[in-house]
Amino acid sequence: MREVAIIGIGQTSVDEHWDKSLKELAGEAIFAALRDANRETAEALFIGNMLSGILSKQENLGGLISDWIGLPGMEAEKVEAACGSGAAAFRLGLLAVGSEEIDSALVVGVEKMTESLSVETTEALATAADADYESAQGLSFVALNALVMQLYLHTYGWKHTDFAPFSINAHANALHNPYARLHEAITQKDYNNARMVAAPINLLDASPTGDGAAAVLLVPADTIRAATRPVIKVIGSASATDSIAIHSRKDPLWLTAAEKSAHKAYQQAGVGPGEIDFFELHDAFSIMSVLSLEACGFAERGKGPLLGLEGQIGVKGKVPITTRGGLKARGHPVWATGVYQIVETVQQLRGEAFPTQVEGAKIGMAQNIGGSGATVITHILTAE
Amino acid sequence: MREVAIIGIGQTSVDEHWDKSLKELAGEAIFAALRDANRETAEALFIGNMLSGILSKQENLGGLISDWIGLPGMEAEKVEAACGSGAAAFRLGLLAVGSEEIDSALVVGVEKMTESLSVETTEALATAADADYESAQGLSFVALNALVMQLYLHTYGWKHTDFAPFSINAHANALHNPYARLHEAITQKDYNNARMVAAPINLLDASPTGDGAAAVLLVPADTIRAATRPVIKVIGSASATDSIAIHSRKDPLWLTAAEKSAHKAYQQAGVGPGEIDFFELHDAFSIMSVLSLEACGFAERGKGPLLGLEGQIGVKGKVPITTRGGLKARGHPVWATGVYQIVETVQQLRGEAFPTQVEGAKIGMAQNIGGSGATVITHILTAE
Repeated sequence: MREVAIIGIGQTSVDEHWDKSLKELAGEAIFAALRDANRETAEALFIGNMLSGILSKQENLGGLISDWIGLPGMEAEKVEAACGSGAAAFRLGLLAVGSEEIDSALVVGVEKMTESLSVETTEALATAADADYESAQGLSFVALNALVMQLYLHTYGWKHTDFAPFSINAHANALHNPYARLHEAITQKDYNNARMVAAPINLLDASPTGDGAAAVLLVPADTIRAATRPVIKVIGSASATDSIAIHSRKDPLWLTAAEKSAHKAYQQAGVGPGEIDFFELHDAFSIMSVLSLEACGFAERGKGPLLGLEGQIGVKGKVPITTRGGLKARGHPVWATGVYQIVETVQQLRGEAFPTQVEGAKIGMAQNIGGSGATVITHILTAE
Repeated sequence: MREVAIIGIGQTSVDEHWDKSLKELAGEAIFAALRDANRETAEALFIGNMLSGILSKQENLGGLISDWIGLPGMEAEKVEAACGSGAAAFRLGLLAVGSEEIDSALVVGVEKMTESLSVETTEALATAADADYESAQGLSFVALNALVMQLYLHTYGWKHTDFAPFSINAHANALHNPYARLHEAITQKDYNNARMVAAPINLLDASPTGDGAAAVLLVPADTIRAATRPVIKVIGSASATDSIAIHSRKDPLWLTAAEKSAHKAYQQAGVGPGEIDFFELHDAFSIMSVLSLEACGFAERGKGPLLGLEGQIGVKGKVPITTRGGLKARGHPVWATGVYQIVETVQQLRGEAFPTQVEGAKIGMAQNIGGSGATVITHILTAE
């Protein structure tokens, strides 16, 4: 496959955007990405979204958004892989440009969640779990993650409070990200005393949903001439699945799909976890940060919380994560999240992430998870 | 892009499958495609579907179906482009194999429509129209198509009964397709007297929805050795969009996106409409057959009905269409339809379509339409 580069990024703030529709949010991010790339158009549009049909009673986003941005006629498709939809759309845009069939592709992740024309968001979100064996039994996503966290604490002997550093770090980094949903530092005491949601997950373990859109523009790397800033190339991209119902997995505490997709991406990029300068992981719940770090080889099985407790996850640590706030504090506009992660990875690699810049960052990884580990998509980017 | 071939096809009958779930239908078609190709597995799975989240309360089909078919771990994503989802999934599977990142891709279109856990199917279907300006005003898809057909009759001076040949031909061809929903020959008299749905569209202008799944297996063409039957290659693939709301188009009687995507596909394949031996078009309503034939260059503007009246659309005609029954009589399991069209195109090119075989067919075209012409995806296949 020919090499592909990201030449434009754009995003809206993650917030309750009561005054903006789905297409307006998407347009805002797309125009920002085009401006950033100094381009006016693109050949194709890949959209990451899952719930517009349920919450906004609007599918067929390809026609809707391409028309709205003033580019009717362009190829446009929506890609869905639950909460991994953003990265899935990015990956298919990447393959389209890589295949030489498409010479420029916009990827936009967009979600409007605070408003619903039908069911409540929690019920809509539960469609990412197994309808027959999980959601029909009343298991929401926070409940599923709570069961996993309980099992983790029980199996490896950690205390709930040992997970605090993940949330504290995310909130600290988000303070400096103007697009983040939460601008609010938190302490260990805040974490310990936060309101319970589904034991042991409390409010500060869980990421806030929201409305938002993020976009990138992809082109063949060899078409970039006279670059005035680092050229950001995609050097690893892999997607893997696991059973959708957690009880069907051999080990509910191991994200097999995360391991598989990270491993494939490492192979493509010719690196290992040791060469990754920072990792934008999918911290929908703090337990997911730990499981992701373990599955991707940054921590031994059952030892994930140590990285937080030893101060290794901050921007000056060994494994900087959620450097712009992560899902926990930048916010989790669910199906846009995967594209936000790519945008933030590009910011770091361009050196545009002050004051949470990872010094000398050359290789960054982003991992987006759909469902409770059922679809996991990993990307590795580098600056040249 | 490297050449891609279809080496396996599979389908379920289109019917009310009360006894089969979404994943069971998908699995049946996938296993049939694998058996047909004499393979046991594939590297990736692309799923065409739109309404599972609304009707079955199940998204994240990638994880769900890959697990169900016994291949957890494989890459799997869902692609949505309204009623064009099937062809959109096929196209992205094609690009993935073409890009050299994936060496074998299953594409499955699956839809379960006769059962709903939430709203009625008609309301769910309306999410493919413009939520703000069409469906919110009470416009269903049949109503939208009725307005277009009214305008067509008025503008070009045809009578409603002139459209009968499209439905008669589809029903006649479906008689010999064991997977078709309707096995029932109809006459001009039946058509003239059919119950009105939304004037001027009557029951015999409209395609029946249903449950069903169709699947194909894609591999690089150069990996096929010692073929015992014709090798089916994809020589044209293009996707284009138009404004989602019909009133925003300059000419509501012209499918700009169909013209654009067909034109691109012709260019890639190095052929014109004259070289197309048969055309599996998107006859969701008889008016769509006419608009599609005109936009793709098989008939002059306003002259589409002539092809039917002159007997040119049958399997021995100049432009054989809907040779296995089309949406009208094979049935329209909406988001699977695009893959059914590909499966049927392969049957014709392999010479497996007796007694509705188009004699000597070497080049076939399939066109899948999402919304009322908002997303149109055209594929051209050839037998070697």
